[in-house]
Amino acid sequence: MSSSSAAVGRGEKAGKPTMREALVAAAFRLFLERGYEQTTVDDIVALAGVGRRSFFRYFPSKEDVVFPDHERCLADMTAFLAAGADDEPVHRVCDAARLVLLMYTENPAFSVQRYRLTRQVPGLRAYELSVVWRYERAMAGYLRARFAGLRDGTLRADVIAAAVVAAHNNALRSWLRADGKGDAEAAVDHALEHVRAAFGSAAVPPVTEGPDDVVVIVSRRGAPLWRVVQELETALGRG
Amino acid sequence: MSSSSAAVGRGEKAGKPTMREALVAAAFRLFLERGYEQTTVDDIVALAGVGRRSFFRYFPSKEDVVFPDHERCLADMTAFLAAGADDEPVHRVCDAARLVLLMYTENPAFSVQRYRLTRQVPGLRAYELSVVWRYERAMAGYLRARFAGLRDGTLRADVIAAAVVAAHNNALRSWLRADGKGDAEAAVDHALEHVRAAFGSAAVPPVTEGPDDVVVIVSRRGAPLWRVVQELETALGRG
Repeated sequence: MSSSSAAVGRGEKAGKPTMREALVAAAFRLFLERGYEQTTVDDIVALAGVGRRSFFRYFPSKEDVVFPDHERCLADMTAFLAAGADDEPVHRVCDAARLVLLMYTENPAFSVQRYRLTRQVPGLRAYELSVVWRYERAMAGYLRARFAGLRDGTLRADVIAAAVVAAHNNALRSWLRADGKGDAEAAVDHALEHVRAAFGSAAVPPVTEGPDDVVVIVSRRGAPLWRVVQELETALGRG
Repeated sequence: MSSSSAAVGRGEKAGKPTMREALVAAAFRLFLERGYEQTTVDDIVALAGVGRRSFFRYFPSKEDVVFPDHERCLADMTAFLAAGADDEPVHRVCDAARLVLLMYTENPAFSVQRYRLTRQVPGLRAYELSVVWRYERAMAGYLRARFAGLRDGTLRADVIAAAVVAAHNNALRSWLRADGKGDAEAAVDHALEHVRAAFGSAAVPPVTEGPDDVVVIVSRRGAPLWRVVQELETALGRG
C-alpha cells in the first residue's frame, strides 16, 4: 500500500477528500517521511495547499491531527451509552468499546501507521493515555448511573470500565502489532467475553444475610464456569 | 494545619529536612499561594535558598516536584513484584497496590493538597495518568510472566492489572476527596477484595471439555457469592 492512500483516514470512500482528510493525509505523509518532531504545522499546510487557519479550524494542535477521529468516537460512545438505559449494563459498555474498535478497523493501514508513530513519540503516547482515560470515564459514568444505589456502585462501575478498556486494548494492540492482519472483531469479542464472565452480574447487589436455607446446584464438570455462575446466581435469587 | 508543615512530604520524621524535601516544601508553598502555572522553578529555588542546578539534580521538571515519591514507589513496587514469584499472583499485585496507598497515607495533608492541585492543572492530570499507567504496566508485566503459557495469559494479566488499579484508585480518591479523613487502608482492602472475588482464580486455566460427569454443590442461600464461586471452582477442579 502507498503511505498516502493509507493516510486518508475516513477518506477510503469514493469521492474527493475533504479539507480535513487532506490535512490528515499530508500530515501522515510528512510524519512518515521526516518524523513527527521534524514536521511543523507550516509543513503540513504547505503540502495540503491550505492556510494555517484552516489547520487550526480542524485541529487544536499538531497532536490532534494524529488522532483525528477520537472526538467523533467519544461523542458517538456518549450518545450510544445515553441511549442504553434499559440494556444489561456490562453488555452495553462492551458494545460501546466495540465502537472504538470500529474506528480502528475502518482503515487498518492508517491505524497501524499511527500505532507505530505513537510508540515512537512520548508526547503522542501521553495524548493517547488521556484519550483512553476519557473513554474509560465515559463508560464508568454510565455504569455509575446504572449502579446508583447499589452497594459499592461506584467501585463496581470503575473496575468494570477499566477491565473493559484493558480487554479491548489488549486485543486491539495485538491486532495492530500484527500489522492489522487477523480478525480484530473476533479477538475483541473474545477479550470482552472474558470480562463479561467475571463481571456479568456485577449490577446485581449481593443479598444480605438471609434465611439459612440450602441451595443445590448440579453442573456438568465440563461446563464453562461463567455459565455455572449464572445458574448459581439464578438459584440464589440474584439473577 | 499550616501549608508548610503539610508540604514537607516525607519530612514528617524528626530532623532537618533534606534539600530535596526543602525544595518540595518551597514548591508547594508557592503553588498554593500563587498557583502552579504562576510559579517558576526560579521562584522555588529562591524560596528554598538553593541554585537552579540543585533543583534539576532532584527533579527533571516542575511537574516532577509535584510527585516527588512516585519514582521511589515504582522502584519499590518493581522490586516487591520481582520477589513474589511464588505467591498467588492476584494476591501479590493487590499487595503491590497497597505500596502506592502507603505513599499517600504517609502524609495525608500533603496528598490532599496535591490531589486538589492535580484537579486544577491539566498538565499535572496528564502527568498523573502517565504515572498510573506505569504502575499498571509494572503489575501487568508481573502477571504476564506468572501467567506465561496459560490460555489468554496476557489478556488476563492486563485485565486484572487494570481492575486492581481502578479499585485502588476508587478507594484512594474517595479518601482524598474526604480530605484524608477515614480509614484509607480499610477502604482499599475492601475495594481489592472485590477484584479478588472476581479474578482470584484467574491464574488457573479453564479445563478443556472433560468427562460428562456431574458436580453437586450445596450452599447456604445467604453465603457471599464469591465464596460460593470459590467452592464451585474447587468442586470443578479449577481451584
